Amino acid sequence: MLNNEEQLRELAERIYDLDAEVYAQLGSSLGRVFNRNRESCVDELVNTMLTRPQGHLMRSELALIANMARTIKDKEERKLVMTEYNRILQEVMSLPTSFVSGDIIDPEMAKLNAFNLQDRFSSEDHLIICISWTYGCGGIDVGFKLADKLKINYYDAEIFEAVLKRLEAEKDTVRDSIGYSSNPDLNPNLASAFEQTKSLTLRQRMREFSRYHGLSKKDAIFFNQSDLLCDMARKEDFIIMGRCGDAIMTNNRIPHISIYITAPFEQRVRHTMEIHNGMGEKKARRLLKHLDRQHSHYYNFYTSRRWGNANNYDLCINSASYGIDGTVEFILRMIDRGVKNKK
Amino acid sequence: MLNNEEQLRELAERIYDLDAEVYAQLGSSLGRVFNRNRESCVDELVNTMLTRPQGHLMRSELALIANMARTIKDKEERKLVMTEYNRILQEVMSLPTSFVSGDIIDPEMAKLNAFNLQDRFSSEDHLIICISWTYGCGGIDVGFKLADKLKINYYDAEIFEAVLKRLEAEKDTVRDSIGYSSNPDLNPNLASAFEQTKSLTLRQRMREFSRYHGLSKKDAIFFNQSDLLCDMARKEDFIIMGRCGDAIMTNNRIPHISIYITAPFEQRVRHTMEIHNGMGEKKARRLLKHLDRQHSHYYNFYTSRRWGNANNYDLCINSASYGIDGTVEFILRMIDRGVKNKK
Repeated sequence: MLNNEEQLRELAERIYDLDAEVYAQLGSSLGRVFNRNRESCVDELVNTMLTRPQGHLMRSELALIANMARTIKDKEERKLVMTEYNRILQEVMSLPTSFVSGDIIDPEMAKLNAFNLQDRFSSEDHLIICISWTYGCGGIDVGFKLADKLKINYYDAEIFEAVLKRLEAEKDTVRDSIGYSSNPDLNPNLASAFEQTKSLTLRQRMREFSRYHGLSKKDAIFFNQSDLLCDMARKEDFIIMGRCGDAIMTNNRIPHISIYITAPFEQRVRHTMEIHNGMGEKKARRLLKHLDRQHSHYYNFYTSRRWGNANNYDLCINSASYGIDGTVEFILRMIDRGVKNKK
Repeated sequence: MLNNEEQLRELAERIYDLDAEVYAQLGSSLGRVFNRNRESCVDELVNTMLTRPQGHLMRSELALIANMARTIKDKEERKLVMTEYNRILQEVMSLPTSFVSGDIIDPEMAKLNAFNLQDRFSSEDHLIICISWTYGCGGIDVGFKLADKLKINYYDAEIFEAVLKRLEAEKDTVRDSIGYSSNPDLNPNLASAFEQTKSLTLRQRMREFSRYHGLSKKDAIFFNQSDLLCDMARKEDFIIMGRCGDAIMTNNRIPHISIYITAPFEQRVRHTMEIHNGMGEKKARRLLKHLDRQHSHYYNFYTSRRWGNANNYDLCINSASYGIDGTVEFILRMIDRGVKNKK
């Protein structure tokens, strides 16, 4: 590591010479980064390396030399110049005053990002993919197809709702039967619900929804879903569509991949009109705006994050750039790599 | 393709039977998706397939059966059930009334997305990566390292500015020399600028900046940069940091990869304090907010897109999830695949 002025001066002179050499090869006076006399240029370079809090300007100057150097026609000469450039760059990059050693990585976030897990996959880690999406971008098709390709479970709002509805119907039946017989032996459903409190199944969990007194039904559903998701995450691989899955996983420190899928508004309008055969453009626009507001409100309310803000997710994908199958392929590509060492 | 009611009824009956079979295997009455009598369930299923404008609800019901079926312990039985599920799913997916055949893909956008080019790379296609980023997320380090790994040119605001400054100094010299000699032969720089109007070099282009009268300097710079970028895109591979590169490439229908890099605000504040050794938290927050506003204003002004909006880019990456080197690796991984067939 360079740390005294004399060594810095030597490095500065090498930079000056590199620039001069590139200039000599390319032959235009416009091609020169340091175009004043040697002494003042070297002084300024040394000063930069000593005092600048960050190396971006310095690095840009070097990059400019390299950009030009790459246009040198003579192969031998180009190789020579690029070798010297690489050596200089390495030394500049290692300067304590020139570059920060810090990284932007957040260890907590990185730990929770399943894409980073390739070296740490154990049989206890499950592949959990949380997908948020905007209506009309094909996100739900992407999620379903992805689950099908990965052969893992798929959960969306409709599934949760369907189970909930059936459980409510079920509960009515249970109540009726209670009227006739309160003996658990004669009512296996009721009995099993009391018996297995430790390892509740999805269905049993869903039944519990209706028992959260003191919370609004909406809140009760959310908190139950949250518990249910965490429970599932310990047992199986799955894809969860929406339901604030990403925030729930993060809050409970469960590794996962969070993906946000969207597309430009105009494409979403077009696709929405296709989905709802015969829907007019004006109505489709209104529907999308309404749903965006609703989704955004739900997410912001329960997570204190901002829905659709790129920095909430590991990855945002534009489905209009890839199409539905293309987006599935794109994610599969990432996961294949991510779980390569799992076997 | 199924299209008459009788065939749909047959399919509905298979769905009902599949559900019943899964129920029989798992043994819980809560495990049943269709828990009323056969006739009314089948009627409802047929009705759904005939009239629903989209298949999400239907698909979710099937997914729920599959989710349960996967928990069947008996391997043989599970395989049998899953095979029937897959057959049914395929038929349901092909229903004209149940699913839209449309895709969200925008052919124009897809054509411009270099990630999609793996089968179409010719020697005339260049790899152009446009990176937008928020200050303090390490985006500029990602860009520089990526260019270095790919051995392609790297352009950022500082490079453009450095060249511009030198050109202005150069112009002054030129003016001075004009004072003494207007003979182009005695002033090679001036002469070459007039001569080569067809294939201007970077440096010559930059010189042109100062000649855009009637436009504000800012506008002149933007439009010159835009021309310059399009020109470069025809000749070389490169990474362009910011400068509305993505919008310029899209407007000029040049295939490219547009990536937005960001990180949560708190991580960016921390990293900014690290970069500016000794900067307080309050000041870092103010700086970031100021720069975000400035970048956003610049981008929105020149592109009529919204800066940082996930649907402008092919991909948004959270650098706090991957770190600087991790983000570089992540992008390299995508590109390796993308250009695999190039050789």
